[in-house]
Amino acid sequence: MCAAHGNTLEFITYPLCMLYSDAFVEIKDIYLQIQKSVDSKNEGIRPKGSCRSISAISSPITTTITNDAALKTKVDEMLSTIKWDKSGLVVAIAQHIDTGAVLMQGFANSDAILATIASGKATFFSRSRSSLWTKGETSSNFINVKDVFLDCDRDSIIYLGLPDGPTCHTGATTCYFTRAPNAIDDTQDTTASFPLTTLFALEETIHNRKSQLMDGSVSKPSWTHKLMKDHELLCSKIREEADELCRTLESNEGKDRTASEMADVLYHSMVLLAVQDVKLEDVLEILRKRFTQSGIEEKSSRK
Amino acid sequence: MCAAHGNTLEFITYPLCMLYSDAFVEIKDIYLQIQKSVDSKNEGIRPKGSCRSISAISSPITTTITNDAALKTKVDEMLSTIKWDKSGLVVAIAQHIDTGAVLMQGFANSDAILATIASGKATFFSRSRSSLWTKGETSSNFINVKDVFLDCDRDSIIYLGLPDGPTCHTGATTCYFTRAPNAIDDTQDTTASFPLTTLFALEETIHNRKSQLMDGSVSKPSWTHKLMKDHELLCSKIREEADELCRTLESNEGKDRTASEMADVLYHSMVLLAVQDVKLEDVLEILRKRFTQSGIEEKSSRK
Repeated sequence: MCAAHGNTLEFITYPLCMLYSDAFVEIKDIYLQIQKSVDSKNEGIRPKGSCRSISAISSPITTTITNDAALKTKVDEMLSTIKWDKSGLVVAIAQHIDTGAVLMQGFANSDAILATIASGKATFFSRSRSSLWTKGETSSNFINVKDVFLDCDRDSIIYLGLPDGPTCHTGATTCYFTRAPNAIDDTQDTTASFPLTTLFALEETIHNRKSQLMDGSVSKPSWTHKLMKDHELLCSKIREEADELCRTLESNEGKDRTASEMADVLYHSMVLLAVQDVKLEDVLEILRKRFTQSGIEEKSSRK
Repeated sequence: MCAAHGNTLEFITYPLCMLYSDAFVEIKDIYLQIQKSVDSKNEGIRPKGSCRSISAISSPITTTITNDAALKTKVDEMLSTIKWDKSGLVVAIAQHIDTGAVLMQGFANSDAILATIASGKATFFSRSRSSLWTKGETSSNFINVKDVFLDCDRDSIIYLGLPDGPTCHTGATTCYFTRAPNAIDDTQDTTASFPLTTLFALEETIHNRKSQLMDGSVSKPSWTHKLMKDHELLCSKIREEADELCRTLESNEGKDRTASEMADVLYHSMVLLAVQDVKLEDVLEILRKRFTQSGIEEKSSRK
């Protein structure tokens, strides 16, 4: 069981709804939907992240808003600066806090942004249903929003958050799985290609090399294949590259050399991650949780 | 001088315009604007990346489209599957290919997407001016698009690319520099807070520690401060963490331990980067350029 379940929802929801009385019904409904969805899941097998998604409701941003009446005015003022379109909407982009992946894009009205800030769950306005819609209300794949950002024109927002599972209704990690030049070829959808940024594109390349090794389809052996087959070589390279990175500082070899050696450290380490079936995303999650404490405190806590 | 300047623009632009005769004027105008903008810059000091922005016009995607008549039909068919809104537009999000940062969001019509694919420059439809608009046409801060992705509903696209400079007209790296809880406090805009994903948030934290050291404002010394002041300690930690990462493989210590040690390697290496004034973005650029070749080829080319 998740200790934060139940009371936290009431504690957070109702004071906020009283502050924003004109949005009372819709925001309350959102929370009842979230609670209902989580309750139904609790009866069966708990989906990955469902406990975390509840605890996210008591995130700092939520606690601050519910406990600080002065901030109510601030949030109201912030909302009043937004340039809503003719339908009272802005574009809302959900982005993965660890990987940077654009998960999905919808639209948000004032109540959707309020609900998102209050609940920590990415909430949109459905234009087809003319109602608020929290991503995950049916699938339980919520996007746990840690921060909200506005653009310079105040007509576009980013929900920066951590998804509980795949964001797309198709089961894909993100909704952007159709590369434009392949877009008309339906067969391509099954070998979905995402807009991968550099580190994740490198991770995929390394992963593909591993798959080739495993199914015996290596036509032209690469350096990555060689490292994967020879763990002694791989480890000696990681130690060597780390040493070379250090020597750029010790021998004052210059910025270009430092960047190049860091690239070597990253690449070889990522081959080791692939060998061990560890995703870069898991490493980033550890870093995110770790660097909110000061280094010395964190170091002490691990001793 | 940039060798690709001039002829490449004509070679790429005009055949495409002939293929898409109904879009001829607008696409031609876009290219003339780009060429004019770059020409004017060439008369003075060349802005960073302007040569690269020209060479990007002969990117694989552009060359393929202009040389492959069959693909013209494919692109037309792809465009016909897009669900345009009442104004014939879709949401277009520009994302940084290395950092994953959402740079800006605009809208695109059919011609804007065509122009983007053909030119490799992120192009939008300006709703206020009712005309195509290539980001960078006045500032020369183009976004060099490497790939275009559609979402599952076909009403939202991502331009994945490399910006030549700051994207926002304010000079900020991205347009999303206003954190929602601070949004009504104008003084906060000068200490802009971006939607930083984990690695870049960590980089900023480390950078802030360095600034504190440099201006003598360290109130409570952290582990990061300590590493920055003692390079011998920093290098010994990097070598130690790399060794511990290797031992997770050599001694089969399990996935959790591997992820944790990789986090240590990353953090300590990033402190060294900060000491050396090297940005993570520069390291990612090296990796992007490097991993398009096979490891062995790349390794050979460096020997």
